[in-house]
Amino acid sequence: MSLKKSVDPLVLINFKTYLEATGKRAVDLSKRISVACRESGVSVALAPQFCDIAQVAAEVDVPVFAQHIDAIVPGASTGHILADSVKAAGADGAILNHSERTIRISEIEAAVLRAREVGLTTVVCAGSADSAAALSMIQPDMVAIEPPELIGTGRAVSKEKPEVVTDSVKKIRAVNRSVKILCGAGISTGDDLYAALNLGAEGVILASGVVKSPRPETVILGFCEAVRRFNESNVGRHS
Amino acid sequence: MSLKKSVDPLVLINFKTYLEATGKRAVDLSKRISVACRESGVSVALAPQFCDIAQVAAEVDVPVFAQHIDAIVPGASTGHILADSVKAAGADGAILNHSERTIRISEIEAAVLRAREVGLTTVVCAGSADSAAALSMIQPDMVAIEPPELIGTGRAVSKEKPEVVTDSVKKIRAVNRSVKILCGAGISTGDDLYAALNLGAEGVILASGVVKSPRPETVILGFCEAVRRFNESNVGRHS
Amino acid sequence: MSLKKSVDPLVLINFKTYLEATGKRAVDLSKRISVACRESGVSVALAPQFCDIAQVAAEVDVPVFAQHIDAIVPGASTGHILADSVKAAGADGAILNHSERTIRISEIEAAVLRAREVGLTTVVCAGSADSAAALSMIQPDMVAIEPPELIGTGRAVSKEKPEVVTDSVKKIRAVNRSVKILCGAGISTGDDLYAALNLGAEGVILASGVVKSPRPETVILGFCEAVRRFNESNVGRHS
Amino acid sequence: MSLKKSVDPLVLINFKTYLEATGKRAVDLSKRISVACRESGVSVALAPQFCDIAQVAAEVDVPVFAQHIDAIVPGASTGHILADSVKAAGADGAILNHSERTIRISEIEAAVLRAREVGLTTVVCAGSADSAAALSMIQPDMVAIEPPELIGTGRAVSKEKPEVVTDSVKKIRAVNRSVKILCGAGISTGDDLYAALNLGAEGVILASGVVKSPRPETVILGFCEAVRRFNESNVGRHS
Repeated sequence: MSLKKSVDPLVLINFKTYLEATGKRAVDLSKRISVACRESGVSVALAPQFCDIAQVAAEVDVPVFAQHIDAIVPGASTGHILADSVKAAGADGAILNHSERTIRISEIEAAVLRAREVGLTTVVCAGSADSAAALSMIQPDMVAIEPPELIGTGRAVSKEKPEVVTDSVKKIRAVNRSVKILCGAGISTGDDLYAALNLGAEGVILASGVVKSPRPETVILGFCEAVRRFNESNVGRHS
Repeated sequence: MSLKKSVDPLVLINFKTYLEATGKRAVDLSKRISVACRESGVSVALAPQFCDIAQVAAEVDVPVFAQHIDAIVPGASTGHILADSVKAAGADGAILNHSERTIRISEIEAAVLRAREVGLTTVVCAGSADSAAALSMIQPDMVAIEPPELIGTGRAVSKEKPEVVTDSVKKIRAVNRSVKILCGAGISTGDDLYAALNLGAEGVILASGVVKSPRPETVILGFCEAVRRFNESNVGRHS
Repeated sequence: MSLKKSVDPLVLINFKTYLEATGKRAVDLSKRISVACRESGVSVALAPQFCDIAQVAAEVDVPVFAQHIDAIVPGASTGHILADSVKAAGADGAILNHSERTIRISEIEAAVLRAREVGLTTVVCAGSADSAAALSMIQPDMVAIEPPELIGTGRAVSKEKPEVVTDSVKKIRAVNRSVKILCGAGISTGDDLYAALNLGAEGVILASGVVKSPRPETVILGFCEAVRRFNESNVGRHS
Repeated sequence: MSLKKSVDPLVLINFKTYLEATGKRAVDLSKRISVACRESGVSVALAPQFCDIAQVAAEVDVPVFAQHIDAIVPGASTGHILADSVKAAGADGAILNHSERTIRISEIEAAVLRAREVGLTTVVCAGSADSAAALSMIQPDMVAIEPPELIGTGRAVSKEKPEVVTDSVKKIRAVNRSVKILCGAGISTGDDLYAALNLGAEGVILASGVVKSPRPETVILGFCEAVRRFNESNVGRHS
């Protein structure tokens, strides 16, 4: 399930440490999302908590991401997250430097290398256009720009601060032509995703918009509809 | 499987982030240890990596510990370890403040409370007799004294620095009569455990001594033999 | 200027990183406080920012504390706070583990030792009665209990949460008979100090109550009056 | 004393937390260096410990750097390093993200902005060519590439790993044409500086090579000689 080569817009759903997405409920939510996106065609990935990776990966047929990995090699690192361990549990990728789990740049660099070694796709998060561009030079597979002040607000970055997305895309593309660019913070509807794609983002990262929704399937279907709309409106451009 | 009331010596085996105890190998090792200690009678607990907790807990009939939990409540804490999550995965307890994953005292306090709320037994680690006594005032279920300079050396604390163990026991008991006292660092044989018990410890914490052993069963049987020897030599004292 | 043996109530004024107490303004404020407390008799100590220690210590005749020191020995520790350096600048003591600058318990232990080596008095802060008692076992010269939820609120711990102070005093005294006990959070008037002393505290730690006051001298004189009142009301008890 | 516009090679001497450069000895060393470089013409800057900034800045006529500043605004940040405070003490600049004091990229960004606000020149350190280029996108005044494995070894980066310097220069210049590029780790002689300049670096950062030297003046004079040699060998190139 290679995420790296995919040209489809990506919707990465971060389960954070929400109780609604812990243990059995993480597996149930994953199944509902998986069914909805199978029917809809949108490209979705899930980031459950570490303890739930194995069962989520076993039960659903979508890419699974760890929410973090540490910049460590196998050995004496009690309580840390080893890339080899999340890979063995079935993860396909790892989020790095999320605004709720920031790490040093030397650690981002080392963790990206470790992820590559074991075959994990990496999404490195950044809070500003400058740092997103900076971190894209570390050569992760994807960069996600998330203005921290909008995270968890329900006000979508792609509508509230479109200039942050366009500025990020411009600055990132000046130094890295191939990294996949996501945006996040406040994303919860298809319209938010549609706006993001129109700004040049190639996907979104979101959490409560799906996890806290009483009808996650409906949210997913909204994303699907947005991708279809976007593809149709762009079909003439590349032909 | 209540660990709190047990009067038996405890052998807590920390899998750290060793490749020999990651993924499928964590499950295999757990099974081998579980079989050996079922035959032998010694009280063993296992601390695999987070991603392996669910499967280890599902496969073996010994208590399972997380190697760490964060001092967080459910919510927006991407990449952190939620007590509820490790509990849901099947863990019975959690190690806190291991020398390879130290946290602030306010975090130890909050994490002990969170663990109690969700029903996890806690082992708080300390590097000196004074800090072990200090941390026993936070009211964890167990305190483990581990001089950092001996960790991973193969030179057992109970033989190399017996005075650290006796001093810890004395200082801890002056302020907390019920906390279970473990010691660790360099423990790898039954003799090391026997020495620890004679110094007043009620169990040990160890890692490479079992995880890196070509014959973990033999190590476990050595611990069993040590406990039997200790019980016999003490049988007259309490009658 | 030995603080350790003093039986007088202590008022420790933390300058934090307030602009009103930075650079020249730190020196001016220190002089005004120093003059006021010379006239009044109350025992005051000042904790300016690191860059201001030398000049404050040179200009005023009251004990000066660093707001933090690191648990390091001299050497290659760029950007860290060396005990020997704050001592050489003229500091008499150091605050450790303030709620705005918490450190690990192993670091508190090492920093207390380093402070003792170079001749600095230590005040270790704690956010709860249990952790205050725990940290008093590390043998600092003083312990300060500061409930984090009241810091900076102007609502004094000694009035809003008197039970936290009495509980702390009880628990600390059970394990350490000589450590000087301070309390803090929201202290800004003589009445707050008077209440604190009546609860068994031997001093207070405060910041904005003095630093942000348009008339710091008046606040200091209020503290002086409170100490006099407290001494008079207790004069019969010990005779 | 604007460092930003200077085209001269810079020698930035980091005093770290060496006892040889603490308190009175920091001031003495600064004076000796200052006299030597006044005679020699080389452009030198000094980075003493925080407590020594004020006196060093008062006594010598060379630029002074703080070894670190925190990404904070004035307020309630006990024990932290405020940009305004080091500026008020007389500092001209600040080192950020030294390998012994690494910070998160969001903190580097915020600290660079704070430094600019108060008028401090910034040197951001990085451990690899990629991260040096990445951090140059944050728009600091200078970037210093220091391979951590060579720091403190006495084996100069410009001789042991010249490709790291050239690679850094190339990658940094691709994204930032004006940032001043320093290199460091193991630099201790004029030859090391000469090699660095020939690789495209515009200065060096060093510590023990001067601080621990019995004759710091001699080391400085060696640097001066190296700069003169470099200038002469390049005089024809630009005419």
